[in-house]
Amino acid sequence: MSSAASEPTLIGLDWGTSSFRAYLLGGEGGVLERHESPDGILRVPDRDFAGALEACLADRGWGAMPIVASGMITSRNGWVETPYADLPSGHAELAAGLMAHRTPTGREVHFVPGLTTVDDGVPDVMRGEETEIIGAEALGFGDGIYVMPGTHAKWVTIEEKRVTAYATYMTGEIFAALKGHTILGTLMEADGTFHAEAFARGVEAAKARGTELLHTLFSVRTLPLFERLAPVELTDYMSGILIGAEIAAGRARFGAVSSVVLLGKPALQERYRLALDRVGVEGLGTPADCAARGQFEIARAAGLIG
Amino acid sequence: MSSAASEPTLIGLDWGTSSFRAYLLGGEGGVLERHESPDGILRVPDRDFAGALEACLADRGWGAMPIVASGMITSRNGWVETPYADLPSGHAELAAGLMAHRTPTGREVHFVPGLTTVDDGVPDVMRGEETEIIGAEALGFGDGIYVMPGTHAKWVTIEEKRVTAYATYMTGEIFAALKGHTILGTLMEADGTFHAEAFARGVEAAKARGTELLHTLFSVRTLPLFERLAPVELTDYMSGILIGAEIAAGRARFGAVSSVVLLGKPALQERYRLALDRVGVEGLGTPADCAARGQFEIARAAGLIG
Repeated sequence: MSSAASEPTLIGLDWGTSSFRAYLLGGEGGVLERHESPDGILRVPDRDFAGALEACLADRGWGAMPIVASGMITSRNGWVETPYADLPSGHAELAAGLMAHRTPTGREVHFVPGLTTVDDGVPDVMRGEETEIIGAEALGFGDGIYVMPGTHAKWVTIEEKRVTAYATYMTGEIFAALKGHTILGTLMEADGTFHAEAFARGVEAAKARGTELLHTLFSVRTLPLFERLAPVELTDYMSGILIGAEIAAGRARFGAVSSVVLLGKPALQERYRLALDRVGVEGLGTPADCAARGQFEIARAAGLIG
Repeated sequence: MSSAASEPTLIGLDWGTSSFRAYLLGGEGGVLERHESPDGILRVPDRDFAGALEACLADRGWGAMPIVASGMITSRNGWVETPYADLPSGHAELAAGLMAHRTPTGREVHFVPGLTTVDDGVPDVMRGEETEIIGAEALGFGDGIYVMPGTHAKWVTIEEKRVTAYATYMTGEIFAALKGHTILGTLMEADGTFHAEAFARGVEAAKARGTELLHTLFSVRTLPLFERLAPVELTDYMSGILIGAEIAAGRARFGAVSSVVLLGKPALQERYRLALDRVGVEGLGTPADCAARGQFEIARAAGLIG
């Protein structure tokens, strides 16, 4: 690693609703140090974001350098609300939309804008995902369809390094609501194992009955009633139904590509890889911390670093 | 009304998970008296169903006569579990499947079987709805598609007075889980009004994007963010999305009929009537207490009454 590569150059903050990640980045965008905690924006006492940040940086001895922040910290419930940029947007457009804020201790934090798009009169939004995707693109994954599993999963089209279209699927949040608060959840038992076959059955059920999600979900009730699925298999079966339904909808909207790039937690990437495989689509895994690389690209495009 | 019509002949029990309805029926199937309470099977102390029934009948002075019971009281969590009858089934098949049980006080209760069907290897079930539909059919609504809104909504085909196909949609339960336990519910405000226009927008959104329910639901989040829907409109908008998605799925499965028969609570019948109207389907309303008439038809077919 060259001296520039190992020289601390930028601090990146990926600050979400329920998680906080801080990165110390070198001169070529590599992650030199990394800090993660559950102190998302909802857990910061008195919304003292400046104080929380200063404590984190002081603890680690990270010095004075530019800071780029992305995620829900840029929303109305966060620290500095940035506007939404329109599509298409890449690192240059996101850099142009940065909003700078000086903290009481004199640090300058640059907040990344969110993205919005309108489809058939209905708006969609993202905050944070744009930065992760820009990072993954810069890491060599290039143009194509990016799939980001999670509470509000995103499917995103990247063309010529810019986001040109995307859609949000509430897969993760709906999974949690159904598991936690319907009769389906009361039937589920846990044994700590991933039941791959039950998951695959769920994916296949969604594939066969793409338009019938409200009906297909009832099979989570009926299959155990007739002892066709065990209680310990139901969670993965329902996960398969919902991820399968998302994939069917995503492919209908974004085209029948032969591969997509997967971001997010490794276990979720693996679930999506398995589900995509059943419809003949290769899911390409990405490393952790794509957000940090995206922050670096945006900072460089903004001239914050050399 | 003739003497036979006003003569108490049969007691009908429509006993569900969270509601109890008892009917005193005349010799031609008319409801002479009616009692309703929230004492569904989950609220009966010590599962003493016989005691709860005896108290109810003694309070009303209803004498010794045959009793027919339908609903979740016939399930594993109920009083006497009846098997599921296969399709096609009408009043004759349901009568043949009645299970008799004598109570400690000598009353004879006849429990109606549920129905099951298998579609593409996946079972579906109902308990109670079959009796309501048989009743509505006997009241003159005839063959056709019956739609029963609710927690677990049913679409049912009646041919030659028998159930020949059906499917369950978890519309009501999913609505409640999303309203109560997702970010969408946190955005909703109540003003006690039915917002017909917002409801219609939801139905139209589902119609335009039938396969994309996981995506369309995110518009409940984004439209208020851009002040395109008011917080007080969101509940009805989401209701429209889910009912619209059910209708799209039901029509794809049961055919593009020009009218369907609606059962259930008047307010839900009205919502479905409005939603169906937007896809050119007439929703025909039914009176309350169809279950009682179904119990009468089944009792007569079983020879329990003259």
